[in-house]
Amino acid sequence: MTNYPDPDFEGRVRRSFALQKAMTTVGAELTSVAYGTVEIEMPFAEQLTQQHGFLHAGIISTALDSACGYAGFTTMPADASVLTIEFKVNLLAPGRGERFLFRGEVTKPGRTIIVADGRAYAMGESESKLIATMTATLMTVRGRDDVKE
Amino acid sequence: MTNYPDPDFEGRVRRSFALQKAMTTVGAELTSVAYGTVEIEMPFAEQLTQQHGFLHAGIISTALDSACGYAGFTTMPADASVLTIEFKVNLLAPGRGERFLFRGEVTKPGRTIIVADGRAYAMGESESKLIATMTATLMTVRGRDDVKE
Amino acid sequence: MTNYPDPDFEGRVRRSFALQKAMTTVGAELTSVAYGTVEIEMPFAEQLTQQHGFLHAGIISTALDSACGYAGFTTMPADASVLTIEFKVNLLAPGRGERFLFRGEVTKPGRTIIVADGRAYAMGESESKLIATMTATLMTVRGRDDVKE
Amino acid sequence: MTNYPDPDFEGRVRRSFALQKAMTTVGAELTSVAYGTVEIEMPFAEQLTQQHGFLHAGIISTALDSACGYAGFTTMPADASVLTIEFKVNLLAPGRGERFLFRGEVTKPGRTIIVADGRAYAMGESESKLIATMTATLMTVRGRDDVKE
Repeated sequence: MTNYPDPDFEGRVRRSFALQKAMTTVGAELTSVAYGTVEIEMPFAEQLTQQHGFLHAGIISTALDSACGYAGFTTMPADASVLTIEFKVNLLAPGRGERFLFRGEVTKPGRTIIVADGRAYAMGESESKLIATMTATLMTVRGRDDVKE
Repeated sequence: MTNYPDPDFEGRVRRSFALQKAMTTVGAELTSVAYGTVEIEMPFAEQLTQQHGFLHAGIISTALDSACGYAGFTTMPADASVLTIEFKVNLLAPGRGERFLFRGEVTKPGRTIIVADGRAYAMGESESKLIATMTATLMTVRGRDDVKE
Repeated sequence: MTNYPDPDFEGRVRRSFALQKAMTTVGAELTSVAYGTVEIEMPFAEQLTQQHGFLHAGIISTALDSACGYAGFTTMPADASVLTIEFKVNLLAPGRGERFLFRGEVTKPGRTIIVADGRAYAMGESESKLIATMTATLMTVRGRDDVKE
Repeated sequence: MTNYPDPDFEGRVRRSFALQKAMTTVGAELTSVAYGTVEIEMPFAEQLTQQHGFLHAGIISTALDSACGYAGFTTMPADASVLTIEFKVNLLAPGRGERFLFRGEVTKPGRTIIVADGRAYAMGESESKLIATMTATLMTVRGRDDVKE
């Protein structure tokens, strides 16, 4: 058996994700939860665009932040919450495509501070294109009433 | 008279903002456009929350990115478009409040590269609280068919 | 009397700074220590340049990191140490000048996480020019044997 | 034969690196130059330390910035110069070790804007430890007299 801090990390991530109403609003789905790696997918939607008709950089960041945050969350104990301290996003190509994939991966686990990196891809019929990268710094929080789950 | 690269910068920002469907989706309004400084406001909305019921960090970033991007856009010539190359956000306090203000300000104008800094505030009855800061690097784009306005 | 967590914050910063051998190597001096704000100055030196003869961006970051870190350190209790979790630097203009000033200021104090912003200026005879900005995320550390002072 | 924008990219990187006096000052050597990837190594040195006796975060950034910058430089045409627009560093572990390796890799090539990611490792006898990551945004510059090589 594993030595995961919380063997039910997948269930915990899925329950927390379901509480993120912003994910429903942007049409994002949790498509993969592994220890240290989480994937989210989202179809293109007109109501999420910027002025040129591409996915808004902030919406890309919203999905990447959730992917990175939940990647970190998989490595935390059952009674912990995850908070994003900061993140940086590089926008590499326009958010143009029918569907988008956002993968967050833990680069550096830790008791208090966790660093995760994310990548966003525009997915076409035959290939996917890297459109953005994120580095996020996360904090494990315990014993705060306002940040549970 | 002024020497603004585009004396109609306010009209240009307002027309472009109106095209950002993501702004409508998150309920954001353009409340102030000055040369080098743009403000956006947004009421709290349940559908924009993360798992603890606060405004999702990505939604905060969405509004800050637009505020910073349009702050930079005010300094550009009439035929230019603005692209966000990258941004970094620090989340300083939970996105808790009835209403939020996002201010973007140009820190360093430039012909090609512009740097803008943004601040997000949760606004209460008597005081406002700084909840996030952003530094965004913007690029002036000309002559690209896919990024007009 | 003040309510500073450590009334001797200036002495504590000065003693710690004196231990940073990198500061001696780059010729940096601590020129101002106030609660929440620290300034460092450095003359231009050929041995700190990049390929175009300007101050290397990493050296600018070295001084800004110390300025931001010590700005945060002024707000910490006497038995705490400061660690930099991450920082971002925007290089706004070439590191050209006879002398440089680096100012770090606490944007958001905190028990565990502190955010500080820094600005680097090239100083000439009559004016100073903003050449770089930094946002740094700092952590208050206690009870770790390897990070004292 | 290759289609590299400059087939002599290695020679060009090596000549430019030799001009970076900051690299000599910190004791850094260029140990590997491949298309899109550059490695720099540096022994630990007391004069580069912060207050706890570890390699200063700014010195780590100095070497990472050069590694990322030259990784980008390998992809540029022969008459271009490279400028760092901005970078972000996450410090994952103390800069403790006898020797350090800094690897920069191009994540997104581009005509004007290039994004590179870097990793810093403390190297021991039997293993290496990831101590820092960087994301750097670079710009290709042409026709500016002050930034040649």
